[in-house]
Amino acid sequence: MRRQITGFSNPAIKAIRALREKKHRKAAGRFLAEGLRLLTDARENGHVPEILVLSTERDPHPLLAELEGAVEAVGGEVLETTPDILSKITGKDNPQGVAGVFAEFDTTLAALDRTGADIWLVAQALRDPGNLGTMLRTGDAIGAGGLILIDDCADPFGVEAVRASMGAVFTQSIARAEWSEFLPWLRGAPGQLVAASLRDARPYRGAPYAAPCFVMVGNESRGLPEDYETACDLRVTMPMKGRADSLNAAVAAAVLGYEVLAKLQP
Amino acid sequence: MRRQITGFSNPAIKAIRALREKKHRKAAGRFLAEGLRLLTDARENGHVPEILVLSTERDPHPLLAELEGAVEAVGGEVLETTPDILSKITGKDNPQGVAGVFAEFDTTLAALDRTGADIWLVAQALRDPGNLGTMLRTGDAIGAGGLILIDDCADPFGVEAVRASMGAVFTQSIARAEWSEFLPWLRGAPGQLVAASLRDARPYRGAPYAAPCFVMVGNESRGLPEDYETACDLRVTMPMKGRADSLNAAVAAAVLGYEVLAKLQP
Repeated sequence: MRRQITGFSNPAIKAIRALREKKHRKAAGRFLAEGLRLLTDARENGHVPEILVLSTERDPHPLLAELEGAVEAVGGEVLETTPDILSKITGKDNPQGVAGVFAEFDTTLAALDRTGADIWLVAQALRDPGNLGTMLRTGDAIGAGGLILIDDCADPFGVEAVRASMGAVFTQSIARAEWSEFLPWLRGAPGQLVAASLRDARPYRGAPYAAPCFVMVGNESRGLPEDYETACDLRVTMPMKGRADSLNAAVAAAVLGYEVLAKLQP
Repeated sequence: MRRQITGFSNPAIKAIRALREKKHRKAAGRFLAEGLRLLTDARENGHVPEILVLSTERDPHPLLAELEGAVEAVGGEVLETTPDILSKITGKDNPQGVAGVFAEFDTTLAALDRTGADIWLVAQALRDPGNLGTMLRTGDAIGAGGLILIDDCADPFGVEAVRASMGAVFTQSIARAEWSEFLPWLRGAPGQLVAASLRDARPYRGAPYAAPCFVMVGNESRGLPEDYETACDLRVTMPMKGRADSLNAAVAAAVLGYEVLAKLQP
């Protein structure tokens, strides 16, 4: 049963739009995702939105009908509203005709199964939500188990991160932890911690990567703290042929992640 | 001789701020860059700003004094203004204390010297300025000669692209061309065109890359047009272990670019 909403001041719409802000996401334990492809990826990975928001001017599509059916089957709500209101919800000029509200996932380290994958990505104090979403997308591509966010990172459930992840926010495990929690957890079972680093580092190509391999990159401006690097099993570096002394964090994670993949799954 | 400006409505400030918009950049043939490090990179690569804008609350720094001297030596202008006005110019909450106005460079294919580098990056219809800046930054890191922008790409001289390039906008050559101009130019001299592709592609690792190698990625949503891929000498693909069928464009360029580098300069 669809509910029609045509006013931007409707409380349901206001509550959904508020999920664009981190404090409201945190309070509600909910986040927003948009687009038929992304919502279909979510459903196929067992994540059905609690609220589905449809544009009155959407294109009909069998996957959209399936999505609506899935939402109703679990007792979720379906709202239909104007393209203008939908674009205000998603913050995009050309909304994709559909958005969903999802419950946030368990992001504790305890929820991760490190035996489930050969590669895990780790980001420390990553501030850019686009970089974070791109790391999730890359993690999906290299068959990583998930992304572990150390210290004060951008929110993986923010609209920009979800968008940049291209659906990988639903396929990758996500954990958030302080370094002081992460390191004992890591050392409590087999696992190799590898830093993309400039200090005391060996060439990234041909380094002795071992599964499960945790590939860590640091903050966009400051890189990894020195004691974090020291705690790693392996520090590797990529050639830097020009003036710059570092790569974009998501790029570094990808170049290194693909190298680890080639070594572990030749 | 510094000129003090304290009003946002000052015509000089308005003209500089207008450079945040593409149409004004195009009309003026000028662009904005910010931050001491970036402006120093520019100077060391022979690019001195025509106008230097300093914040009254900047930290003193010997490189800043050198920069100011360089601007005055070439008859440029030095403006001093409030942090508030500077942040309105750069669109950043925490401006870095200094910004510069530069003349745009020659971006014709004729200005490129393909014998000057083993690797060149090529982007087709790349729409995201952050991706474009990140490709410039990666190009610098792998020792590429520059970035060639095919068809309707984001503006490499936009504030966001310049920022993401981390100074590489001043170290990498940049050319803009339609495909119909680029292909004859490419075929007019030795050069291997390699596409990151999903069609009829071989694994990217161990492919027979040859210098000068032109590494091409396509539009973020649509990828490369089929006839563009067909025109390439080599189509290569990265493993995709998850649900997604593509990487972020700047990530694909980097993973492939580092592989080409390892082959050409082992």
